Amino acid sequence: MDHHHDGNRRAQDPLRVAGSGSLGLVTDLYQLTMASSYLARGLTQPATFSLFVRHLPPNRSFLVASGIDDAVDLLESFAFDDAALDWLSTQGFDAAAIDALGRLRFSGDVWAVPEGRVVFPNEPLIEVTAPLPEAQIVEALVLNQVTYQTALATKAARCTLAAAGRADLVDFSLRRTHGIEAGMAAARAAAIAGFVGTSNMGAARRFGLRSVGTMAHSYVTAFPDEYEAFTAFAEDFPDRATFVVDTYDTLKGVDVAIDVIDRLQLRGRLGVRLDSGDLLDLSVLARRRLDEACHHDVAIVASGGLDEFEIKRLLDAGAPIDVFGVGTKVGVAADAPSLDSAYKLVEFNDRPLMKQSSGKATMPGPKQVHRLAPSRDVLATRSERPPPDSTPVLTPVMVGGARRVASATVGQGHERLLQDLAWLSPELKVLKGEQVSPVTVSEELEALTRTVQADIHQR
Amino acid sequence: MDHHHDGNRRAQDPLRVAGSGSLGLVTDLYQLTMASSYLARGLTQPATFSLFVRHLPPNRSFLVASGIDDAVDLLESFAFDDAALDWLSTQGFDAAAIDALGRLRFSGDVWAVPEGRVVFPNEPLIEVTAPLPEAQIVEALVLNQVTYQTALATKAARCTLAAAGRADLVDFSLRRTHGIEAGMAAARAAAIAGFVGTSNMGAARRFGLRSVGTMAHSYVTAFPDEYEAFTAFAEDFPDRATFVVDTYDTLKGVDVAIDVIDRLQLRGRLGVRLDSGDLLDLSVLARRRLDEACHHDVAIVASGGLDEFEIKRLLDAGAPIDVFGVGTKVGVAADAPSLDSAYKLVEFNDRPLMKQSSGKATMPGPKQVHRLAPSRDVLATRSERPPPDSTPVLTPVMVGGARRVASATVGQGHERLLQDLAWLSPELKVLKGEQVSPVTVSEELEALTRTVQADIHQR
Repeated sequence: MDHHHDGNRRAQDPLRVAGSGSLGLVTDLYQLTMASSYLARGLTQPATFSLFVRHLPPNRSFLVASGIDDAVDLLESFAFDDAALDWLSTQGFDAAAIDALGRLRFSGDVWAVPEGRVVFPNEPLIEVTAPLPEAQIVEALVLNQVTYQTALATKAARCTLAAAGRADLVDFSLRRTHGIEAGMAAARAAAIAGFVGTSNMGAARRFGLRSVGTMAHSYVTAFPDEYEAFTAFAEDFPDRATFVVDTYDTLKGVDVAIDVIDRLQLRGRLGVRLDSGDLLDLSVLARRRLDEACHHDVAIVASGGLDEFEIKRLLDAGAPIDVFGVGTKVGVAADAPSLDSAYKLVEFNDRPLMKQSSGKATMPGPKQVHRLAPSRDVLATRSERPPPDSTPVLTPVMVGGARRVASATVGQGHERLLQDLAWLSPELKVLKGEQVSPVTVSEELEALTRTVQADIHQR
Repeated sequence: MDHHHDGNRRAQDPLRVAGSGSLGLVTDLYQLTMASSYLARGLTQPATFSLFVRHLPPNRSFLVASGIDDAVDLLESFAFDDAALDWLSTQGFDAAAIDALGRLRFSGDVWAVPEGRVVFPNEPLIEVTAPLPEAQIVEALVLNQVTYQTALATKAARCTLAAAGRADLVDFSLRRTHGIEAGMAAARAAAIAGFVGTSNMGAARRFGLRSVGTMAHSYVTAFPDEYEAFTAFAEDFPDRATFVVDTYDTLKGVDVAIDVIDRLQLRGRLGVRLDSGDLLDLSVLARRRLDEACHHDVAIVASGGLDEFEIKRLLDAGAPIDVFGVGTKVGVAADAPSLDSAYKLVEFNDRPLMKQSSGKATMPGPKQVHRLAPSRDVLATRSERPPPDSTPVLTPVMVGGARRVASATVGQGHERLLQDLAWLSPELKVLKGEQVSPVTVSEELEALTRTVQADIHQR
């Protein structure tokens, strides 16, 4: 049967779940069109494209770099398979173009911001230097990975700032992310931000994260009553039972949990989860009942539509919540699900270039960001001399199409974020409102921009 | 080298880009925990879970069902591979649990709304009936696919309503979707909504869509000037050149395009693309210049941050735009990137069930939706007699773990959406504000809900 065949192929075909069929086809038509034109014309001199975010979404003063390692991994594997080439020959590409695309691999150099670092508008997240057709053809792929993963990591970091060490955060987002791939990225971004665990088992395994979970309402309703459900669960997982208590009546649910904990004399990582209602009131009342029953170490877990604003509100108001299960709003970066990212040609054949479109102008040439204490960056040309006591933010990660630095582990990303958050001034870490960017442009880059601009106007 | 190995593995490992490693691990820990408990206790009687959306996001009065076919495809392949099982044995699952999970396949039945149909809050999009552990363990997987794809299809359909046949829409979202997988789903959702093409080549190939594209600003800046760039592009693609005209100065760019079209005597599908500035003013002025040069058939393509509101505003104001390239805002469903979806146990072992959590109560039992003319649905128990002159919305798509109906083609999804949009009353199609849901609950379902509620209260 055809549909059976289809189901099996999904498990066998490398990219079927991601769905693209061939990595080379993770491309917009115009990139192929332009690349073919360049190839046909021998315009294969080195080009540098710079990926940066023009403006930040509301309530953001910084971004957390992410998705760069996935982008670089994909560059390493970028190629068209035979089936993709056959299909392209039906899409207006001639034999010479198909032949050239078939031989195309990414052979370029990449400078990038390490995962987990804080970045600001107009600072490059990644700069790709390669023969023009190669650098152009990977535009959508690189923008895709870096844009959404940076949006997710930024949102997660805001939750960490909101919790400010007062409670643990865990990732519950898999069911609402935009696909399985996005679920993996969300769990990883959350871990870089400092979340202590994830419910997503695939992500826990792949990234070495702590897997966390409680029970669903369905477990409670599958039994004749809450008492029987909690008892069964506690028998099966005596040392790690967290009871969801709001299936029928939250405070009665807490009483039932206490009853079961007492009768079975449970010990270990125990908890109750509140998933609806007024989480402030209910957590206070639940804590009181647990404390009165001498269960000071039974944790209160809260979930349901949480984001950085709600976490801060609850903790500032004194809600005795130990763990926040944060799902949807981080998993889709609900208030800013995309970023105003751009991938712009800044140099071709040693000629620095820019675009002047209204409100979308770019600065020419390959760049470097120099990080200075306290909380100040200088955006500069890549080749100029660094300011004293500065650290360069971009580093070479790929040379001649091969990775030079291994992908960051989640731990490395988290360490870098912690460093940068410590470096960042308090006003840039506020969750509401936007601050003036702490980035200044170097004199050399200013001068270059003026020169290129003048050159355009003279034409 | 280790990192090289990693890069190659991505291209070889079935799920590496989606990233989960094994389909069975596209699961939250609590689903595995509960499933193990059920398996250990022999709680393997049939259970029905119902997936529905509780409340609609702002400015929505309906949803467009999508993601169901992908969910069903994934159910067919659901399994744990050996590596996943080995890893699970390090996560607190004992040998008996690992053994049972290793043998677990999805053997259940699925009723679902066909892709492209209009649905309302509380109407099931998909109902899964299977032995309790199986139906429970696929919760995150099914929620994930159906939730985000329905959010994207709904957003795309709103753009079609905004255009109202006055202009063509094309999908430009790949660079901003939440991953490659989401890019594929976005292109498909847009096609179901009636978009006439996509820039996403992988999606064009997989779903048989028209691939569309223009040129990037980088093409213009790679040449010494706009004239040379446009000339080169037109020489290479004489019958399908769309010139991006806003790299330096939009109206000068239009003049250069006219000049090139005239000198090369181009014919075919030609256009100019406006990607910045005031699209209304610029499109009027560009149209005037093109018409004055007797190029009435050169299309005006607009792009840049467009959504249903902006498309409607521009067309209502008389902007002579022929094609809208819609990207980011549809690709992430910017104003509503997630839906308040739930996957709830509604029946177990022939006992109808519900949850009463504050603000999150559910209705018991398997359901059916009966669609009546005009613009009215009845939400009913699955077994009751249908109202006269009604059509059932949910159909059986999977029996005993095997697909009974093939996945919908994009064309089928689009046809269904057109039918339902024709059926939908005009006030439910307005883009701003929300309307009262046109769904009534059948007497039988009301009675069942009261009975189950009373039963809970008596305990």
